[in-house]
Amino acid sequence: MARIPYKIFLSEDEVPKYWFNLKAVMKDLPDPCLNPVTFEPCTAEDLSRVFCSDLVEQELNTTDKYIRIPDEIQSFYKMYRPSPLVRAYCLEKLLDTPARIYYKFEGTNTSGSHKLNSAAAQVYYAKKQGISKLTTETGAGQWGTALSMACAYFGIDLTVYMVKISARQKPYRKAVMETYGARVIPSPSETTEAGRRILAENPDTNGSLGCAISEALETAMKTDNCRYVLGSVLDHVLLHQSIIGLEAKAAMQKYGIEPDIIIGCAGGGSNFGGLIAPFIEDKINGNSNIRIIAIEPASCPSMTRGRYAYDFGDTGRTTPLLKMYTLGSGFMPSPNHAGGLRYHGMSPIISKLYHDGYIEARALEQSKVFEAATIFARCEGTLPAPESSHAILAAIDEALKCKETGEEKTILFGLTGTGYFDLTAYESYNSGTMTDYIPTDEDLEKGFATLPRVPERTGIY
Amino acid sequence: MARIPYKIFLSEDEVPKYWFNLKAVMKDLPDPCLNPVTFEPCTAEDLSRVFCSDLVEQELNTTDKYIRIPDEIQSFYKMYRPSPLVRAYCLEKLLDTPARIYYKFEGTNTSGSHKLNSAAAQVYYAKKQGISKLTTETGAGQWGTALSMACAYFGIDLTVYMVKISARQKPYRKAVMETYGARVIPSPSETTEAGRRILAENPDTNGSLGCAISEALETAMKTDNCRYVLGSVLDHVLLHQSIIGLEAKAAMQKYGIEPDIIIGCAGGGSNFGGLIAPFIEDKINGNSNIRIIAIEPASCPSMTRGRYAYDFGDTGRTTPLLKMYTLGSGFMPSPNHAGGLRYHGMSPIISKLYHDGYIEARALEQSKVFEAATIFARCEGTLPAPESSHAILAAIDEALKCKETGEEKTILFGLTGTGYFDLTAYESYNSGTMTDYIPTDEDLEKGFATLPRVPERTGIY
Repeated sequence: MARIPYKIFLSEDEVPKYWFNLKAVMKDLPDPCLNPVTFEPCTAEDLSRVFCSDLVEQELNTTDKYIRIPDEIQSFYKMYRPSPLVRAYCLEKLLDTPARIYYKFEGTNTSGSHKLNSAAAQVYYAKKQGISKLTTETGAGQWGTALSMACAYFGIDLTVYMVKISARQKPYRKAVMETYGARVIPSPSETTEAGRRILAENPDTNGSLGCAISEALETAMKTDNCRYVLGSVLDHVLLHQSIIGLEAKAAMQKYGIEPDIIIGCAGGGSNFGGLIAPFIEDKINGNSNIRIIAIEPASCPSMTRGRYAYDFGDTGRTTPLLKMYTLGSGFMPSPNHAGGLRYHGMSPIISKLYHDGYIEARALEQSKVFEAATIFARCEGTLPAPESSHAILAAIDEALKCKETGEEKTILFGLTGTGYFDLTAYESYNSGTMTDYIPTDEDLEKGFATLPRVPERTGIY
Repeated sequence: MARIPYKIFLSEDEVPKYWFNLKAVMKDLPDPCLNPVTFEPCTAEDLSRVFCSDLVEQELNTTDKYIRIPDEIQSFYKMYRPSPLVRAYCLEKLLDTPARIYYKFEGTNTSGSHKLNSAAAQVYYAKKQGISKLTTETGAGQWGTALSMACAYFGIDLTVYMVKISARQKPYRKAVMETYGARVIPSPSETTEAGRRILAENPDTNGSLGCAISEALETAMKTDNCRYVLGSVLDHVLLHQSIIGLEAKAAMQKYGIEPDIIIGCAGGGSNFGGLIAPFIEDKINGNSNIRIIAIEPASCPSMTRGRYAYDFGDTGRTTPLLKMYTLGSGFMPSPNHAGGLRYHGMSPIISKLYHDGYIEARALEQSKVFEAATIFARCEGTLPAPESSHAILAAIDEALKCKETGEEKTILFGLTGTGYFDLTAYESYNSGTMTDYIPTDEDLEKGFATLPRVPERTGIY
């Protein structure tokens, strides 16, 4: 076997031509999403009022394990993919660990994260359907940037509702999106009923992903030839993100590498779901002891402290009901610096896998996360996104456990993006003014009180 | 021949192990740098008071065409190199040109530019010599960021004098450098005699690379076990940057590609010199008709409107005298947004090659440069640095000429970096408030009046 290089790149020929549909390999499927009025499972027709029809088909597809990536999306992917699988030789040396650490680095494109993988797909399908306008929300700004890039490429008009706190923390994100031609509105705003209602209740709100989703949804419903697109949580987004795991697995297989532990940060769950998709099948089938760990911020602990229940995806309570780990759509996350992880719920697929015991979850505090980020930046070069740094800290923890036990485990983690637009957060850490916010049980109870009451059902969904 | 992929990556084995020394292939060498007191050519001893001894040796080496890259630097390079050679399929399609456009993209590392290539080398040699502290200046912030990354990796203390206007335009650059452990001081400052003198004369100055160099030099000379490092202009910096051209040439040769035109932006000339290094030899020998074009900003036109004369490298008039195209060390460039190109002089090697007719030069205005940057970002994905965008505009112009003539020329340009820290500039362009500054002849005369009087010499240098 050849010596493993610092970076493993697949050639264009080796890049996967299919996405991996996690649901097709799950023993038990997630409970279906429900129409919030009838409490009946959503039909394709229900979903098509909001989403493009190809995406609805993907959302409801539980049988096809591989779904072909259309040529146009493959062409788009070639602009910035394959992303490198990096052997963290320098980090290993610094930690003096027998563990072998790899990370799949999704930050080499201008959006600075994995979000472009699904943005490209969603915009392509919209274009194919003749849709001319899209709306969306963005938290950390990564999804909005990615979508504005894809919309510029495919020639689609875009309006982005950006969580107010993120717009303040990351002023230049707006400039990037505008450079790509998007219209950016801080949320909550006066442009929608949902926004006006939230502002009336709480004029000083920092906003949240949940609020921004409500506004983007409302605008899409009220605008001709317009659809809403979402950057995480939903099954079709995880499907598109499976390119991450597929590339990582192909790159590892080239060198005969098998991971013992896979670690990813999880906000809505899309990068995490994409990273683990092709690896978890063997575990589900009982043929693998691989450990799979989702990392969330202690300030927004949907898996580790949330409830597994039907809930709305947005604060405005307008989306279909999703069965997921949630803090309640009314939970207002504290203003931590990992905007992409500041969401009350978790992907139904990831929630189900966690509930069924295939996945572990861990919540980490942000000051320790930034300490890990700084260590990583200084020894591996790349300045990581705060979101990704949750995975870095967990990977370091696991590598240090290997140092204690002497085990030569292979750790793979997802480095979802770069921190070039998160320098306010780094400044706060560098100057020693960063604080950790952990919700009290009382805070959580307030969120849980906003969970909808869904009638018990028996029989077949 | 296989279809050319969007991105050509070399494998670790294919990455060059040697730098290319341009001076070893030049028919006529640049005039030597002079001691500003004696007007005698600088000796190794003169230079060693400021620079590390290995770098002095490289600076004066005119005979060895290939210089081996030490293993430690090769290891560092593996963290972020090889950089991709990209076929600009999308840009070609948009322009509807028969030209084939390639760019060598140096922005995939956290410093966001090619500067890391020389930073790694310079810090390594300092470490090897037992130096514990370094000082430098930074304009756009790319060099300072690169150096802070290399210093964090090799464990060296770093002070960066950052041009004041850049510190204001790019607040987050400082945070990145501090995250990597550097001390950042806006220049001119009160920490040096040179800074205090410049501030006394002109308290509202925006600063310039020339001022910042004076301050960094002074601090290095006055501090124990400290040396000064420079990110451009000097021959050893061009040597380190030859990795760009060597990788580009190796990647092109894999697919049998030969460029007809090479385009690079030129501030101090290091990326440009590095890009063209292995390509210009045949032209010097009369075996190639390749066109090589250096692009500078119309606001700081050292080659197109400057004089070929001995001049100081800094505003404080403390450096050795360099024979170069210059606007005069007293020339104060207008505050355009390409900080990396805002320097009064030009690398002596590039100056000589230009003077001898091997290179063309062109000056471009910034609003047109940002128009090209936006076109490029929207179709190729990557948000380019303003500096690099000068090369983009020139490449577009050449590709459009091919469209008129029907010629299928192969164009290679250097995409030196990303614009993630230049969003103030993009905001200015997006909002229509960007203006172009072109110095009047009178402005230039003021700069030329600051050129030193150097006695005429005959005989051997």
